[in-house]
Amino acid sequence: MKRVDGRKPNEIRKVKIIRDYYPHAEGSVWFELGDTKLICTATVEEKVPQFLKGTGQGWVTAEYAMLPRSTPVRVAREVMIGKTGGRTQEIQRLIGRSLRAIVNLEALGERTILIDCDVVQADGGTRTAAITASFMVLCDALKRLYESEVISEFPLKDYVAAVSVGIADNTILLDLCYEEDISAQVDMNIVMSGDGKFIEVQGTAEKTPFSKDELSKMLGLAEKGVRELIVIQKSALGKDNLMEKQS
Amino acid sequence: MKRVDGRKPNEIRKVKIIRDYYPHAEGSVWFELGDTKLICTATVEEKVPQFLKGTGQGWVTAEYAMLPRSTPVRVAREVMIGKTGGRTQEIQRLIGRSLRAIVNLEALGERTILIDCDVVQADGGTRTAAITASFMVLCDALKRLYESEVISEFPLKDYVAAVSVGIADNTILLDLCYEEDISAQVDMNIVMSGDGKFIEVQGTAEKTPFSKDELSKMLGLAEKGVRELIVIQKSALGKDNLMEKQS
Amino acid sequence: MKRVDGRKPNEIRKVKIIRDYYPHAEGSVWFELGDTKLICTATVEEKVPQFLKGTGQGWVTAEYAMLPRSTPVRVAREVMIGKTGGRTQEIQRLIGRSLRAIVNLEALGERTILIDCDVVQADGGTRTAAITASFMVLCDALKRLYESEVISEFPLKDYVAAVSVGIADNTILLDLCYEEDISAQVDMNIVMSGDGKFIEVQGTAEKTPFSKDELSKMLGLAEKGVRELIVIQKSALGKDNLMEKQS
Amino acid sequence: MKRVDGRKPNEIRKVKIIRDYYPHAEGSVWFELGDTKLICTATVEEKVPQFLKGTGQGWVTAEYAMLPRSTPVRVAREVMIGKTGGRTQEIQRLIGRSLRAIVNLEALGERTILIDCDVVQADGGTRTAAITASFMVLCDALKRLYESEVISEFPLKDYVAAVSVGIADNTILLDLCYEEDISAQVDMNIVMSGDGKFIEVQGTAEKTPFSKDELSKMLGLAEKGVRELIVIQKSALGKDNLMEKQS
Amino acid sequence: MKRVDGRKPNEIRKVKIIRDYYPHAEGSVWFELGDTKLICTATVEEKVPQFLKGTGQGWVTAEYAMLPRSTPVRVAREVMIGKTGGRTQEIQRLIGRSLRAIVNLEALGERTILIDCDVVQADGGTRTAAITASFMVLCDALKRLYESEVISEFPLKDYVAAVSVGIADNTILLDLCYEEDISAQVDMNIVMSGDGKFIEVQGTAEKTPFSKDELSKMLGLAEKGVRELIVIQKSALGKDNLMEKQS
Amino acid sequence: MKRVDGRKPNEIRKVKIIRDYYPHAEGSVWFELGDTKLICTATVEEKVPQFLKGTGQGWVTAEYAMLPRSTPVRVAREVMIGKTGGRTQEIQRLIGRSLRAIVNLEALGERTILIDCDVVQADGGTRTAAITASFMVLCDALKRLYESEVISEFPLKDYVAAVSVGIADNTILLDLCYEEDISAQVDMNIVMSGDGKFIEVQGTAEKTPFSKDELSKMLGLAEKGVRELIVIQKSALGKDNLMEKQS
Repeated sequence: MKRVDGRKPNEIRKVKIIRDYYPHAEGSVWFELGDTKLICTATVEEKVPQFLKGTGQGWVTAEYAMLPRSTPVRVAREVMIGKTGGRTQEIQRLIGRSLRAIVNLEALGERTILIDCDVVQADGGTRTAAITASFMVLCDALKRLYESEVISEFPLKDYVAAVSVGIADNTILLDLCYEEDISAQVDMNIVMSGDGKFIEVQGTAEKTPFSKDELSKMLGLAEKGVRELIVIQKSALGKDNLMEKQS
Repeated sequence: MKRVDGRKPNEIRKVKIIRDYYPHAEGSVWFELGDTKLICTATVEEKVPQFLKGTGQGWVTAEYAMLPRSTPVRVAREVMIGKTGGRTQEIQRLIGRSLRAIVNLEALGERTILIDCDVVQADGGTRTAAITASFMVLCDALKRLYESEVISEFPLKDYVAAVSVGIADNTILLDLCYEEDISAQVDMNIVMSGDGKFIEVQGTAEKTPFSKDELSKMLGLAEKGVRELIVIQKSALGKDNLMEKQS
Repeated sequence: MKRVDGRKPNEIRKVKIIRDYYPHAEGSVWFELGDTKLICTATVEEKVPQFLKGTGQGWVTAEYAMLPRSTPVRVAREVMIGKTGGRTQEIQRLIGRSLRAIVNLEALGERTILIDCDVVQADGGTRTAAITASFMVLCDALKRLYESEVISEFPLKDYVAAVSVGIADNTILLDLCYEEDISAQVDMNIVMSGDGKFIEVQGTAEKTPFSKDELSKMLGLAEKGVRELIVIQKSALGKDNLMEKQS
Repeated sequence: MKRVDGRKPNEIRKVKIIRDYYPHAEGSVWFELGDTKLICTATVEEKVPQFLKGTGQGWVTAEYAMLPRSTPVRVAREVMIGKTGGRTQEIQRLIGRSLRAIVNLEALGERTILIDCDVVQADGGTRTAAITASFMVLCDALKRLYESEVISEFPLKDYVAAVSVGIADNTILLDLCYEEDISAQVDMNIVMSGDGKFIEVQGTAEKTPFSKDELSKMLGLAEKGVRELIVIQKSALGKDNLMEKQS
Repeated sequence: MKRVDGRKPNEIRKVKIIRDYYPHAEGSVWFELGDTKLICTATVEEKVPQFLKGTGQGWVTAEYAMLPRSTPVRVAREVMIGKTGGRTQEIQRLIGRSLRAIVNLEALGERTILIDCDVVQADGGTRTAAITASFMVLCDALKRLYESEVISEFPLKDYVAAVSVGIADNTILLDLCYEEDISAQVDMNIVMSGDGKFIEVQGTAEKTPFSKDELSKMLGLAEKGVRELIVIQKSALGKDNLMEKQS
Repeated sequence: MKRVDGRKPNEIRKVKIIRDYYPHAEGSVWFELGDTKLICTATVEEKVPQFLKGTGQGWVTAEYAMLPRSTPVRVAREVMIGKTGGRTQEIQRLIGRSLRAIVNLEALGERTILIDCDVVQADGGTRTAAITASFMVLCDALKRLYESEVISEFPLKDYVAAVSVGIADNTILLDLCYEEDISAQVDMNIVMSGDGKFIEVQGTAEKTPFSKDELSKMLGLAEKGVRELIVIQKSALGKDNLMEKQS
């Protein structure tokens, strides 16, 4: 079976990463996964949410938005509605949780890494691409903190990347593009760490519930995709990869 | 290993269901799962969201809220903040998706079943309890529509119930109470249909990523829990169960 | 003349009080007045509004909400509209003022008792029932503060209870249920203290203005109702009634 | 006993009325009650709230605001907070109800009279002054509708005016100015119709509950004040008074 | 060519200024420019915006609103919409910038002069009238601060006044009234200081772009108007004019 | 005098235009003016604002936003504050007015061209760059409407472009970058049409008012800049330039 963009069912799309996209941000990347394009940045703030004050512990959080014409049909700016919608909030929370799972928040100290993910063009998989890209800028921002000796321990515990899997036309597909996504019976987003474990597993039967066997196959395919994305992350980090230096 | 409330790891809490809790609602239930107590109602609205107008298709949606002192520490009313928070929106969307997966929306016609889930007391598992309880009131509302001949086909395709599983103290637990939930390393919510398939799978590693083997065991335990809950649903519906009559 | 529920014109509905409804709240009650059912809780907050900071004086305030299907026709959640409506704000302010009238705010010290009134089922008289029920939880919260020696003087000066009166079909009625309320020409809510004085008098001619004589009769009937409610409050408090112990 | 402005306890302040203050409004008045100054206007809108559509019945509603420096200490504009506060909403609802009590809404037809009350200077009694002034502009707007034959029956059933009474320093006072109001133990607002009946009775014990005897004396004093205000209204209307012409 | 109100093209409307309109405000004025009427007040706040904290520098800011019936067709209150509109925000920012240009913010110290401009009646030119009137109350507020020795240097550097010019029916007009304004091809607002320099120049071609020559003529006419307004300001200030005393 | 980026005082920055940046938008451009980078798109909506319904006339409007890290110090997303700020609203209104001045709204018919301007990187002059870029996408969207025969007349009357001028260090500069902008005494934004006339003139003295002579020189420099920008627009449009074909 051929996919709309000619890929095989178990193939991820081409990734392009431009690091240090902005001259001033603590971490910034232009990230492309096929025709899905986004800008991710990391901002260090010397404060933490109320519930962490005085605990000595840091925080990682994320904001996500889409440019109005990033999608075929224009999406309204959320500021015009006056608040972030449910989908946006879900994605923001997912990105934040995923990143926190691989950060030593005690070593970060009482500061926040605020990740901004702005989708320039959306062709499916924006939330998983945002996680994979966010790892890059998180890494850069932490490196700056560590090298400027603001923190004495590099707080990154592992890699993190994410990919979508799904079932469309009864075929299990890796990394769905928009056209595949809207016709999929099942849509899963899998976030995994560098040691091959699960951080988040989110699967939704859009119309037809899925069996244990289908779930198992999707998880396997996702694992393959994440492993490939982490190889790409490592390659893009190159010599700036403090994790490899540590080990 | 004994749990805080004396249950075995693979045991769900005691369920109590009072049907037709309100005299006027199209469906209403007082639902208890251990010390988690909630009121679920179904309201039939003769309109659909904008994107469904003219399609002949219906909709099922949900709203969720907690009473301020349903939790040990008072939670602020969301109206005082001016908007529903991210957690609330996630839960509302989850309930809606879960129910839509087992409803024939074409047979429902252009009307909306609005499910209200109000948590009177929260002791963990409110979102999964809300789904299990929502099925009851959805069923009653659809039965009223069908018996009053507003719709000519009973639109329910299957049962749906949900349960939480997790890993706490390296033990895999079914149906976590609040105390277990806050100390869990992994927290999963599983929504399944009556034929034993998955509708939603949502697993989050709070701190430590989980392995494929752990995931597999959690899914198995969830399946057991959901099967027991569906038995309870059937028993509570009794002779009002149009699905059994059909088959 | 017989009323819809068989009562005599000067009769209040049956009251049911379950104290300590919640295991964790500083005060909590399940309160029924006929088919009007509500949950009232008291939360102690170690802070006061801006205008009281540094005065040594405390505050009592209230929040009020109705569950969506507490009424025959579903009421929209105020959070979906984004703000509390005018009726809700009026009721919240009324409850707060009524309670503050019988509390020694200096003896309370710089802390706030926040009363939550959530209507589970509404059959008329929710605002007056909320005041009568709030007294119970206020009393319990203050007792806890006093017995744990956070405050050295018990700050309750008197009882407070409230009841509605009105004119429907030219008959003066005590404690109107919903059906009576919507057809009433005049609707009054009376809040009184234990010594038989008025704290709030609010009367509204829905259509036909009322005479001085009618007003006088309504006030008399209200006084009877309040006196009976205070007897019920005393009985429910039993030996936890610090006011009786003091005298 | 002399009052701060030299009045006797049972005296109202000097009233000044400039009719047709705006060249374009359907009704408009500059109204002074002592140093309380406000602008009231009436706007006719050819629509009714949702719940009245198709009933053939009209509506009267009101909006109220204070200029920021109308009070000694500047009050924040409500738009800066993003919503109307509880006090404003109470007053708006009170003005609307008071006016509707003397209007034949069927004769008005499916249109709305929107009353705007903007307080230019506040020296106590703004809500009662707003009601008394609103009657004037309501009358003018209805006259225009009637004389232009938009409506065939003049829909005003009676006069309406309002006044405050209260107890300060154990003296019962009529028409409290700001200085008296803030030190008053009891604060009442009474709305009455031209036939001497009550439309609204709102009394609040700020600190000390009040007795039946005190209530009775306050009501008597209020009646005197309202009667005098209606004489002033009649005089200001002069030959434009369609009610007198009818009788 | 005669204008609608009989003025010559280069004539400003009649100005009326009532100083100290409010008994309590630090500066207040009733200001009329023809039929455009507004109330301006100045309030001194002992705080500055976040970005100025610790700089020793003060701030001048403005809020602007229109009474609902100040215009022929009622304008909705912005609080009912929930936020200030774009036009209001533009005007507020313009007034603030214009005043700050002639205030020595260092000499003011860390405090804010908050200017309120409320339009009672609008007949064109409200924003420029608001600037001219605001100067008066700013002057009074600063005088009070200076004379009470809160500040040791009088912080006003120059006068400021503003006027509108425009092109209607191919004639260049000074100080447009509402009727002229709505039919104008070009609309300019010019803010100038007492030494004849420009503080703000804002010109908009409503339909037809304007030439350099037309721009030059409009600027010349505006200069004439501002010079006349400053003469009126000086005359209204009289002996309270600390700037003249200084020189 | 050399500028921070080596330009001469009367030189504009290098412009880069990528047309048809998005595959689906009716008009879209990636636009760079030095280090100021933005994405502009045009969306055709078959509806007009309320006040134009039934007039047969179209509308052009704009929305503007900055990505959070487009600036050296992160700017908060306006949706997190809940509304668009004053600066954003001013810019949106300016872009809309500027474009409407060169569009024949009758020929457009009852539809809206919605322009989205999203600043990817901000180095001064974003609002003028947005206008210059918006012209490109407006042109493309109108061309599509015209060529698909939705409209029978090409509604563009002229070119429009905008540039900033200012005075910094007593030198008059064309097209200020961010560093120049923040230190400028005077900041002007000039919008001109292809025939060399003014559409908008907005000049602000940040601290020191400016003379008529300085104003005149700034206007001359702006004219030079706009003329160069229009040459660049023409070159980028090339053979898609329906205006040239018409003449």
